[in-house]
Amino acid sequence: MPIDVEKVRGQELEPTTFEWNDKDVILYALGLGVGVGASPVDPGVLQYTYENQLKVIPTFGVVPTFSCIMGLIGMDGVEINPMMILHGEQNLEVLCDEVPTKCRATNTAKVTEVWDKGKGAVLVVETLTKDDAGKPIFRNEYKIFVRGEGGFGGESGPPPGNKPPDRAADFKVETPTLEHQAIIYRLSGDRNPLHIDPQMAAMVGFERPILHGLCTYGNVGRAVIEACCGNDPTKFKGLDARFASPVIPGETIVTEIWKESDTEVIVKANVKGRGIDVVKNAKATISV
Amino acid sequence: MPIDVEKVRGQELEPTTFEWNDKDVILYALGLGVGVGASPVDPGVLQYTYENQLKVIPTFGVVPTFSCIMGLIGMDGVEINPMMILHGEQNLEVLCDEVPTKCRATNTAKVTEVWDKGKGAVLVVETLTKDDAGKPIFRNEYKIFVRGEGGFGGESGPPPGNKPPDRAADFKVETPTLEHQAIIYRLSGDRNPLHIDPQMAAMVGFERPILHGLCTYGNVGRAVIEACCGNDPTKFKGLDARFASPVIPGETIVTEIWKESDTEVIVKANVKGRGIDVVKNAKATISV
Repeated sequence: MPIDVEKVRGQELEPTTFEWNDKDVILYALGLGVGVGASPVDPGVLQYTYENQLKVIPTFGVVPTFSCIMGLIGMDGVEINPMMILHGEQNLEVLCDEVPTKCRATNTAKVTEVWDKGKGAVLVVETLTKDDAGKPIFRNEYKIFVRGEGGFGGESGPPPGNKPPDRAADFKVETPTLEHQAIIYRLSGDRNPLHIDPQMAAMVGFERPILHGLCTYGNVGRAVIEACCGNDPTKFKGLDARFASPVIPGETIVTEIWKESDTEVIVKANVKGRGIDVVKNAKATISV
Repeated sequence: MPIDVEKVRGQELEPTTFEWNDKDVILYALGLGVGVGASPVDPGVLQYTYENQLKVIPTFGVVPTFSCIMGLIGMDGVEINPMMILHGEQNLEVLCDEVPTKCRATNTAKVTEVWDKGKGAVLVVETLTKDDAGKPIFRNEYKIFVRGEGGFGGESGPPPGNKPPDRAADFKVETPTLEHQAIIYRLSGDRNPLHIDPQMAAMVGFERPILHGLCTYGNVGRAVIEACCGNDPTKFKGLDARFASPVIPGETIVTEIWKESDTEVIVKANVKGRGIDVVKNAKATISV
């Protein structure tokens, strides 16, 4: 069997190190689409793009772990076709007060669960990113869906939560993207050809290259910061989200937010025009 | 006197090394505006942004020399205010058949002339970029205008050449830019705050941050490659251009091209709507 559940569950991935500086932080922001549809001298743009007043969009916390997660392919007990992988869910927790604009960090990672979804398997991978002094910066939980690898008689995992309440959203934020947004985003590390190569996209059934799930994720985070954190990214402490459908670069992401408490909001996102949900069952955490 | 002409003329700058790879090459292309106003799956976009079929826009040749040129400020015999510096002219020659997408290079540089323009001085700096094997890749000539430093009784240098012939241009290429184009371009190395900081821009008399002259320059080069090289950047061998007026990010650069011979074209660029010339007295060299 291509996924040997007993071998894989609990297995640690190879630790990786990752260094970032202001250039990486700015490139990540530009990759999400900061500056698109906004004035380039808007303080909300400059705080993410100008090194003299730079703040990190905290969803950057997924970036350092990327090389680590790549270790899934080819780990002992995993023989899967990378083209069959879909990013199912992401849960980032920011563990520090303010994300540093420059850091050298180490990632450790472990497969915590393997779930059987029938049509596929879900690998749950937890990563922890610490700076060189050992201070925890980010915790991530990836849920990686591997098509065709289910049906092994395992547990299917908990059902999706974070359903929006039965009322209109308290906030609605529109975030435009560029038609070549994925080409910019991929410079932050995820060079999967699905996001740039029309032939590769067609091979897996897409009419054209799709936006990275984590690019959409960062924009949902940015919308929460704008609507619920007074545009102060240091107040954003986490986002647990499920990828329901891909965004096509150039589309406008519409994030709807329901305030549940001072520190928790339920989130859902769709794309303008198509009206399809792209992020569901999502919850963001905020510090007061 | 802030520029000691006798000391400065002929003086060599500190050599610098610069490494680049496909990420730098793609980031440069995105900084110029590749992908803006075009389909993201256009082969003309992908050849500059997708590592699997990557070609270098040859005007990238200015990028490796940037740190070297910064050595002008504070060199023996030069005491100038960096805010008084304007980029006057740029002459790049591509010395290799095809610009490598990955390279470790060394730059040497020398001030070859100091001209007296009355209202300012012009420092002419020649740089040579060679790869680690000693193979020449780029030659650049910078003409740096230093406001307020003229009137020392020196030669004023040759008058501008490369006047367009008295007929309509043979080619006209429109190149749109993003309103935050300069914010992307500056990640290629030139972080002068004039291109992002509204207060710094105002201090030197601009209503808002302006586009880097070398960003405009790269777009003029790109227009020549499109119109005269069948979109094959390896045929582009050089561009000698004068910066007449700055482009505001978001403007569309209109490059007009007159074919003089199989290997030489005269070039001029203005911005759509304002009709102001931004690049003048320019000539590009093409291989057949």
